[in-house]
Amino acid sequence: MRPKMSRPLRESYTAAFVPGDTITGYGVARVVDSSDPRLAPGDLVWGITGWEDYSVVTPPATRLLSKISHHGVGEGAGVPLSYYTGILGMPGLTAYVGFHEICAPKKGETVFVSAASGAVGQLVGQFARLAGCHVVGSAGSREKVELLKTRFGFHDAFNYKEEPDLGAALKRCFPDGIDIYFENVGGAMLDAVLLNMRVHGRIAVCGLISQYNLADGEKDAVRNLAAVISKRLRLQGFIEPDHKHLYPQYEAWVLPYIRDGTLAYVEDVAEGLESAPKALIGLFHGRNVGKQLVRVADDE
Amino acid sequence: MRPKMSRPLRESYTAAFVPGDTITGYGVARVVDSSDPRLAPGDLVWGITGWEDYSVVTPPATRLLSKISHHGVGEGAGVPLSYYTGILGMPGLTAYVGFHEICAPKKGETVFVSAASGAVGQLVGQFARLAGCHVVGSAGSREKVELLKTRFGFHDAFNYKEEPDLGAALKRCFPDGIDIYFENVGGAMLDAVLLNMRVHGRIAVCGLISQYNLADGEKDAVRNLAAVISKRLRLQGFIEPDHKHLYPQYEAWVLPYIRDGTLAYVEDVAEGLESAPKALIGLFHGRNVGKQLVRVADDE
Repeated sequence: MRPKMSRPLRESYTAAFVPGDTITGYGVARVVDSSDPRLAPGDLVWGITGWEDYSVVTPPATRLLSKISHHGVGEGAGVPLSYYTGILGMPGLTAYVGFHEICAPKKGETVFVSAASGAVGQLVGQFARLAGCHVVGSAGSREKVELLKTRFGFHDAFNYKEEPDLGAALKRCFPDGIDIYFENVGGAMLDAVLLNMRVHGRIAVCGLISQYNLADGEKDAVRNLAAVISKRLRLQGFIEPDHKHLYPQYEAWVLPYIRDGTLAYVEDVAEGLESAPKALIGLFHGRNVGKQLVRVADDE
Repeated sequence: MRPKMSRPLRESYTAAFVPGDTITGYGVARVVDSSDPRLAPGDLVWGITGWEDYSVVTPPATRLLSKISHHGVGEGAGVPLSYYTGILGMPGLTAYVGFHEICAPKKGETVFVSAASGAVGQLVGQFARLAGCHVVGSAGSREKVELLKTRFGFHDAFNYKEEPDLGAALKRCFPDGIDIYFENVGGAMLDAVLLNMRVHGRIAVCGLISQYNLADGEKDAVRNLAAVISKRLRLQGFIEPDHKHLYPQYEAWVLPYIRDGTLAYVEDVAEGLESAPKALIGLFHGRNVGKQLVRVADDE
């Protein structure tokens, strides 16, 4: 959402917000009325909705709404509706694609995740552990670091704000180097990681949150790209919409892990539509713990 | 060779030079005596030799010497021995692997090559044209730019030293963007290229010659990495030694193109061992036109 607020929007894959129009983002909603044969009144959907109580979604945007079939009574019991904005929605598929498809992890490899307690990071860490990797995360508070180690199964974690030398912190956590870096922040962290990667390492470039609020001329310098050659690294940018076709595969894979409690998932819920701007701004200060949500209406 | 002269050598894939020892590099030589059953006196070889008239090569370094079978009378007639330091040697395989294996070009795609008149660049440009791509190169003098357009078949070329705005130069040459960038220089050029890449573009990171003479703290800043996400770019570093097994395939593919004149190849020959240091230094000032060689002895 943040890049959609920048003008000129030269580096985004999505259209800019138009001042005066409704702000949109990923949400969960119930269909009130529909002329789309795919969607009936009462259906629950997830996808792009508005920051508003009721949204009018017209074709072709309706194809960005996916029907929710695993909620409520019956087979899907126990899966909160809000999960479709996170672990069962865009962030979940992002973590799955970025880690499993882009990084092609092998058992025993070392994995580093930045912004590791966020919506995507907390999942990547757990997916990495499930894949038999040694996984370490960074976050911006002691509370988050504890969460990484106690809830999300990271083997180790550090608070980047308390590390005077990020390279030394990485060296301490990865004495033999990093095979896979799941990049959510950019800037100084990326520069430090480059020097600590192992030969043939892979970097999934998912987000650069440290950079989004900087003007073009202020973006942090990355100076250690020579490591890309000497270590034969691959940096791969990706976005979830390119990989929508993998959602059914992902959902089938992840649902059992959610239901049997193998995967933990932490949300940070802001109450009421009026709290949405503050919640969004809070992301850039690391105020959220886990996936940031805004509750606009009751679940049922 | 340049990174091997830096201390500490933390970012190189090869051992540092030891002061007092012979400087080594890729060369062509004739075997005078040998206890290796693979090599007999009189054989011609290419690979890692010394900056000296006679080299003693001991195992395991002997495995870095490849026998030359396509030179002289008979089947290989017309292939100069020096080509085994270039188009038929490490730079040739580098260009082949970097372009065909790393970039996976498709007919009709757009390709940009920096340092395009150098040992590798001049080959990448011609390989790209053979693959049906639209290819543009940059170089550092008018003479080189002419060479790109008249000898190496680049569709267009520019002198980066005469362009006040590299981004504008790229926009002029690639109004619809760049699918493939073959990176030889780094720094400001990479930053400008990132903003001109197309969605799903690929960047083969082969060299960063603009950076090798800078101290760690002086390396040029790359600030436009956000494009890696928005355009879903892949940056892949590579070195030729990882791909040695492809040499027979490459040699078989490239030899007919050399023999029938499809491929042009330009060398810049410095005479005598005593000119070697100056020739190496000249690379960093762009003094060479084409592959820089040092002739230590007569061909035959």
